[in-house]
Amino acid sequence: MPFESPVDAAVAAALSMLLEVSGNPKAGNVDRMHEFSDLKYEHFLASATASLPVFIEVARSGKIGEGIYKAVETSKKWHRASNVHFGAYLLLIPLLTAWNAESMFDAAKVAVENLKKTTYVDSIFISKAFRVCNARVISANNLSLQNTSVEKLLLERKVNVYEWMSMAPKENIIARELVEGYKISLRGAEYILSSDLEVNEKIVFLYHKFLSEYLDPLIISKAGVDKAKEVLELAKKALNSEDPFKAFEELDELLINQNLNPGTIADIVVSSLYLAFVEGWRF
Amino acid sequence: MPFESPVDAAVAAALSMLLEVSGNPKAGNVDRMHEFSDLKYEHFLASATASLPVFIEVARSGKIGEGIYKAVETSKKWHRASNVHFGAYLLLIPLLTAWNAESMFDAAKVAVENLKKTTYVDSIFISKAFRVCNARVISANNLSLQNTSVEKLLLERKVNVYEWMSMAPKENIIARELVEGYKISLRGAEYILSSDLEVNEKIVFLYHKFLSEYLDPLIISKAGVDKAKEVLELAKKALNSEDPFKAFEELDELLINQNLNPGTIADIVVSSLYLAFVEGWRF
Repeated sequence: MPFESPVDAAVAAALSMLLEVSGNPKAGNVDRMHEFSDLKYEHFLASATASLPVFIEVARSGKIGEGIYKAVETSKKWHRASNVHFGAYLLLIPLLTAWNAESMFDAAKVAVENLKKTTYVDSIFISKAFRVCNARVISANNLSLQNTSVEKLLLERKVNVYEWMSMAPKENIIARELVEGYKISLRGAEYILSSDLEVNEKIVFLYHKFLSEYLDPLIISKAGVDKAKEVLELAKKALNSEDPFKAFEELDELLINQNLNPGTIADIVVSSLYLAFVEGWRF
Repeated sequence: MPFESPVDAAVAAALSMLLEVSGNPKAGNVDRMHEFSDLKYEHFLASATASLPVFIEVARSGKIGEGIYKAVETSKKWHRASNVHFGAYLLLIPLLTAWNAESMFDAAKVAVENLKKTTYVDSIFISKAFRVCNARVISANNLSLQNTSVEKLLLERKVNVYEWMSMAPKENIIARELVEGYKISLRGAEYILSSDLEVNEKIVFLYHKFLSEYLDPLIISKAGVDKAKEVLELAKKALNSEDPFKAFEELDELLINQNLNPGTIADIVVSSLYLAFVEGWRF
């Protein structure tokens, strides 16, 4: 049951963000019971809500780069925290341009086709959006978002979003999703659609499943690849423990104490939930 | 700083619903840490999100009755629970038709003026919306929502929404808000704007303040006026205790165990938050 309208797709996107951030316990990240002094659960509620009208616009216009920029700008108007949803926007907005796809596989495919049709103007919008929200990313040799002259280079070489994402280091799993057609998110959606658990439990298990399979780029950029590998192993152990929920809670405490926040893993949960909604998921 | 557009007003309205339901602890109602077997926190997230596009439409069209009906219908599409936000819609939707008001006092005034301009068609839409979501209300002698022939009477006597709400029993505080110009909600907004507490604490205190001042109509309809008075006294005691948060938690447990859910008090918190947003509140 695909979406009937751009509005339905936008509701699904905003709701995916809300469900993800509410997932609890969720090791290392903000959730309904954990927040940081400068980044509160309510900031995520405000950001997701404020994004919805932009999502409607994006689904209607198909403008990926401008859409990501507008989402960041609009989100900022409604709360006083910094970077909240940059990664989620990168994943969701191409999918929203494929709102009338017949299935989640079709949505992922059309999103990548639309990314291939972008121009360097979209890339520049994304670079600007990044500066506005001051998001953290892994350094890349070419056209890293941390490079201040990136917009000049994007313009000179006329790099579109798809080409740009193809240059990202392999650890950048958001870029990989955009280039490879949301492979991880589709697996996530299949889990959401097939699991019999309650909605919160599903989200919590999916999050820790991903955490046990992929190195989080935000942890790599903050604490190095060895630390990221350690987190992955700990997540694996928690998943296989006798009482996974209790183990997730303990891992949560451990990561929060070390200021390790696997934000990209959370972003991939958001796109997984969205793709499940494309397939008509309800709870 | 009033809203710049119908979209901003709609974001504020949906965000008010999300902030209210997230407020924790909140004696007797669903919150981010308490849910019932058939009514989950996530149902409220879905309902609030799905309402936002309808709120944009209402702010643009000014159609109060149809707006309430559409909000109920749209909300239902996104979750499997029953009545979630009927009371909040009754309060918010007239305010949304006054989205370009200069202040919260102006918004409340214009909302009542717009209610006076409604016709019996709006009333019939509201009656239909009520049936769709099967909400619980206090029996009134005249034109009670529990009366199945109410639509025929509304039509025969051509009763508009303002006239209809004027006939409600005095305990129906939502009807009173609509007739008397949101007096309680304006006081609530003043509290939100002036308190120095963190956002969740503000909401929690406001909720219990209202609970200690007004008999909740849902409790009256479910368990009688004496029980409602008892809840009010308990809320007063909790507010004045040495550790109010702990006392709210204890009261929460007590009310949940007795299946007493002061839903209307929660609705009035929603309209209070919305009016604070009209005044430019951010967190």
